[in-house]
Amino acid sequence: MTTMSTAMRSISSLGLCFFKPTSVSKATTVSLGVWRRTGGEMKGLSVRNVGGGGHVSVNEINGKKVINGVEKKLCVENDVEEGDESLKSFKLGRFVEKRLVYRQTFVIRSYEIGPDKTATMETLLNLLQETALNHVMSSGLASDGFGATHEMSLRKLIWVVTRINIQVNKYSRWGDVVEIDTWVAASGKNGMRRDWIIRDHTTQKIITRATSTWVIMNRKTRRLSKIPEQVREEVKPFFLDRKILSQNGDDYKIDKLDEATAKHIRSGLAPRWNDMDVNQHVNNVKYIGWILESVPLNILEHYHLTSMTLEYRRECNQSNLLESLTTIETREELESKSSSKGDLRSTHLLRLEEDKKEVVRATAEWQAKSHI
Amino acid sequence: MTTMSTAMRSISSLGLCFFKPTSVSKATTVSLGVWRRTGGEMKGLSVRNVGGGGHVSVNEINGKKVINGVEKKLCVENDVEEGDESLKSFKLGRFVEKRLVYRQTFVIRSYEIGPDKTATMETLLNLLQETALNHVMSSGLASDGFGATHEMSLRKLIWVVTRINIQVNKYSRWGDVVEIDTWVAASGKNGMRRDWIIRDHTTQKIITRATSTWVIMNRKTRRLSKIPEQVREEVKPFFLDRKILSQNGDDYKIDKLDEATAKHIRSGLAPRWNDMDVNQHVNNVKYIGWILESVPLNILEHYHLTSMTLEYRRECNQSNLLESLTTIETREELESKSSSKGDLRSTHLLRLEEDKKEVVRATAEWQAKSHI
Repeated sequence: MTTMSTAMRSISSLGLCFFKPTSVSKATTVSLGVWRRTGGEMKGLSVRNVGGGGHVSVNEINGKKVINGVEKKLCVENDVEEGDESLKSFKLGRFVEKRLVYRQTFVIRSYEIGPDKTATMETLLNLLQETALNHVMSSGLASDGFGATHEMSLRKLIWVVTRINIQVNKYSRWGDVVEIDTWVAASGKNGMRRDWIIRDHTTQKIITRATSTWVIMNRKTRRLSKIPEQVREEVKPFFLDRKILSQNGDDYKIDKLDEATAKHIRSGLAPRWNDMDVNQHVNNVKYIGWILESVPLNILEHYHLTSMTLEYRRECNQSNLLESLTTIETREELESKSSSKGDLRSTHLLRLEEDKKEVVRATAEWQAKSHI
Repeated sequence: MTTMSTAMRSISSLGLCFFKPTSVSKATTVSLGVWRRTGGEMKGLSVRNVGGGGHVSVNEINGKKVINGVEKKLCVENDVEEGDESLKSFKLGRFVEKRLVYRQTFVIRSYEIGPDKTATMETLLNLLQETALNHVMSSGLASDGFGATHEMSLRKLIWVVTRINIQVNKYSRWGDVVEIDTWVAASGKNGMRRDWIIRDHTTQKIITRATSTWVIMNRKTRRLSKIPEQVREEVKPFFLDRKILSQNGDDYKIDKLDEATAKHIRSGLAPRWNDMDVNQHVNNVKYIGWILESVPLNILEHYHLTSMTLEYRRECNQSNLLESLTTIETREELESKSSSKGDLRSTHLLRLEEDKKEVVRATAEWQAKSHI
């Protein structure tokens, strides 16, 4: 175990903390993690660049010159997996681009849209999660169905997410068909990056981009772990180092709100039974609902979220009560101090009501609805 | 407007009440309604049998003798609708049985399962809603995309649900493929019945049955309305009088709980922004989450819901706080007074915290998880 990075945080007995890697660019792995019950303190490891790992430059794919690797559809569909044709057609997922990209198609359902008739941010993150899990399942690497590989399961290792950034250009409506591509890359020595793009199926335009950072943890000791060589060998063939966001926000520090700096505080938020995942801990997508609870209604009504970054620090379970803190700045307030392109920028903190310990820090950009 | 039925309830200025028809067997219509903002008092109409309306006996279909019309799959797939083949395959829905039944296939997603890894009751009702709305859309009758026909929209009429009963034999797991059939029938003079069955795609066994009752309302005056002849003519060709539940619970009165009779009360339940539908009122599926909030955790952990009946009485919006009341009876307590087959039976009331007015009454049956 290497020394603890400066970004590491210790955890309380209440729940697992996720740490923020100091440096993320290339690393190791292939899947999505889950929140699990935690016990004692979490020990850290450094996250450093090691490079390597199946780097594939965009120019090598299909022999086409493509700027930034994403603006044009890169598609090698002839390596679709074999399998039950009938089931495959229902599941609408398959490998493309020499099995380096997993692509799944979804129809936005009536109950996945919000009051403004477009897919909610929670819906988008749910669809990203589903695509990621199906990617791992289809890769043949999955052991437990929730992202751990065979070699990870043997060692009681799980993936935990530390950070997600999502940028939305256009929200889909009920009945719209979207196509989600996902792939993984190394991120430092002991992290993984998972990226996604969402295309509108009809126009083939990219309407959403997202990136996330994952680290590995021992589910018994709750310590962060290096990636064992055997796990690295399992996942390496899937690495595709294609960046779709100029910066994934890892170099951007999210301010920690408190009673003095938060303009809106909503207390007494209680997880519901249905917010729990299979480990009876709150699924990481559910936090978005609570974050939005402290956003004034007129903002929710008149602005779209165009970007959101979530930094996970601690899990919570059904017995925890949460507090949601929000501060919103307008474009005028922002102009002097940031490069924000939105009309509004918000900063959020979800913390445990009992001891005020942090659960999630978040920041978001908003645009007036007529702009999107 | 005919005289008010005994089951009619007046409404407050806070929200729309849905009434319970006194008699439901055959009526008129084709879709799913939505909750809408309401103003003054709701005037009623009687709901009586008028018969007629494209009754189709099961024996007439495919020339097969089929008991109860549902235990054997009745399928005429050669009348699948024309259209965009590519989009159709994504949406996985089509007409069968001479366009009298609409069938849609779904894969249970990772975020639609609960802590016990099976699809939640909320998920099942969401899928039923989606199938019903796509049924109306595919029929060519839809005007506003939320269930109203062209002739209804001309008259500012909408559908409102008064009662849903769902019976679950087996809960699906993540990745399972289910096939949902839905159809509509007359229900009294001015109501509609919509039924659904859910089959496990692999085994083709029926795993869930559901039935619901709908009435028509003027969205401006908030009065219940007779079904205009033009609307009846629109929807009549779709009627299929096939019952899939021996009784849909309309003859069963759900007890009204209060502080004295409820064993568990949970107050201060606040609708979230994402609980709102396109009319900024709570979607009727969301009530299930609040109902379950007053059910003790050990029941949620160790029992499955095998049956649930929801009786909608009043809508609510984001400014309302709700109270959830529950009473649970064991099999021993039940034996003397009912024909319940479950291990437990529960009775529920959701009411507005402010004035204690009823929003939803519900009853449910539960079985220990090892039994299902």
